[in-house]
Amino acid sequence: MSILVVGSVAFDDVTSPSGSVKNILGGAATYFSLSASYFTKVRVVAVVGEDFGAEQEQIFGQHDIDTRGLERAKGKTFRWGGSYSDNLNEAKTDFTDLNVFQTFQPRIPKEYEDTEFLFLANIQPTLQADVRRKMNRVRLTGCDTMNYWIKGALNELKETLKLVDVLLINDTEAKMLANETSLPRAANNVLSMGPQALVIKHGEYGATIFFREGAFGIGHHPFRAPALPIEEVKDPTGAGDSFAGGFMGYLASQKDLSREVLKRALFYGGVMGSFAVERFGTERLQSLTRDEIDARFQIFRELTHLE
Amino acid sequence: MSILVVGSVAFDDVTSPSGSVKNILGGAATYFSLSASYFTKVRVVAVVGEDFGAEQEQIFGQHDIDTRGLERAKGKTFRWGGSYSDNLNEAKTDFTDLNVFQTFQPRIPKEYEDTEFLFLANIQPTLQADVRRKMNRVRLTGCDTMNYWIKGALNELKETLKLVDVLLINDTEAKMLANETSLPRAANNVLSMGPQALVIKHGEYGATIFFREGAFGIGHHPFRAPALPIEEVKDPTGAGDSFAGGFMGYLASQKDLSREVLKRALFYGGVMGSFAVERFGTERLQSLTRDEIDARFQIFRELTHLE
Repeated sequence: MSILVVGSVAFDDVTSPSGSVKNILGGAATYFSLSASYFTKVRVVAVVGEDFGAEQEQIFGQHDIDTRGLERAKGKTFRWGGSYSDNLNEAKTDFTDLNVFQTFQPRIPKEYEDTEFLFLANIQPTLQADVRRKMNRVRLTGCDTMNYWIKGALNELKETLKLVDVLLINDTEAKMLANETSLPRAANNVLSMGPQALVIKHGEYGATIFFREGAFGIGHHPFRAPALPIEEVKDPTGAGDSFAGGFMGYLASQKDLSREVLKRALFYGGVMGSFAVERFGTERLQSLTRDEIDARFQIFRELTHLE
Repeated sequence: MSILVVGSVAFDDVTSPSGSVKNILGGAATYFSLSASYFTKVRVVAVVGEDFGAEQEQIFGQHDIDTRGLERAKGKTFRWGGSYSDNLNEAKTDFTDLNVFQTFQPRIPKEYEDTEFLFLANIQPTLQADVRRKMNRVRLTGCDTMNYWIKGALNELKETLKLVDVLLINDTEAKMLANETSLPRAANNVLSMGPQALVIKHGEYGATIFFREGAFGIGHHPFRAPALPIEEVKDPTGAGDSFAGGFMGYLASQKDLSREVLKRALFYGGVMGSFAVERFGTERLQSLTRDEIDARFQIFRELTHLE
């Protein structure tokens, strides 16, 4: 099944303890697309400026990503600069130039209307809701958000969450959204806002999926996918979007959406996130093979597997 | 097999978002003993003052813990007061009255000399090394330490680590001990100091065990035991010692010390830590059954188990 992602395409400057890069292709939709492309056919809705050229276009093309929804606008592409110190879990934003992204109004090409899997990357919640409402054949919607919207657009975000099946956020965001310090309580609270399942990402410690009672089969226990500790995290940028790409891409490749499939998807999410951070930008995501992905899936599985 | 723990017995005052208690029985050796007592016979070497009475003695007695090594000294028992805010991972120490613990010199009763499993709870590293050297029949030594000794007695600690088989510390301590920000690199560095295996505890995210190449069987991949998110952590005090009690107690109950047994021990460590924090002090550890422990072991196992 095809999956559609709506989100940002950007040029990034990144500095980390491992080095520094400038003007590399980034953005949530980019990381998501590349990651998901190893599992299924990906369609993108995003906006770029006149500085987005053949070189960048080719990166999408090499992964057979459908860019008919990539709008070319007058002006410059969204630019972001960030630095990481020894605490690689948090980026310090050096600059944000929204440029053409400032007035982004997602337009869904006619050819995309039959898409059954949708991922709403981190954009203004009302835009996320608008996109969801336009897609009548969607079976499963995944969604990301961030502190900025939780603080500044909470009501809009809550409206969006009513339309979403799986929300993927990190510990801090979950606790902030629920106004709760206990993670399981925060999870229950967020699930009561609409989603059938909530994926909470723990960075180097993996991720946990919490289910609404009865969603995707029987049971109510959460499930946790661990992550292998990575020797050198070069660039954490895009780890969450790469996680989402692996998670949603794997789901879109499966016939049934059983709880067991969602568990495997959680592992694939962790696998793709772990690859993403091994090199700067999307470099590692560009050159993977499905065999490499499945080999790491096995390692992640064995990491917690008792005989 | 019997296991011997050398460490502190204390009276604690604890304040957390869930409430406040005063003068409850605490100390690393207490948490460890109670936790390990569900798996094997436990022997204690510690010191208490004249305020340690029949009521406290009985708590050990009810778990058939051998207290012939519990020295009664003139003066008061070690007292500690701590508070936890919403971040339950870190205690703020309100007071530390070492009292009789100040001049603690562990004395091993003759009847303990045949002990094959030893746990050196968090005490001055030179005392830890002295105890280890006195025990000639020990097959496996576990050890804990803390930031205080890493900063203030690093050379002594490094001498102790040469005598230790398994070191159990948390992320911050491992990174500080190795002077490394990457966890896998920190682990390799610590393993080069002596231990055959290193258990790094991640609080609510579980724990990872790193092995020296060739130790406890073939392979070099780490292994991770996740922890179930707990709805209400009432009192994190003693979680690490309860973890160590489950881990070491399970090892002492097994014939072989294969890698598979160490993995299971890591799960049992997480299980016992998760029980400990559900109530204040040792309350929950006093009233468990082996069936409850094994039921939670199954839940932890299923938490990451793919079909």
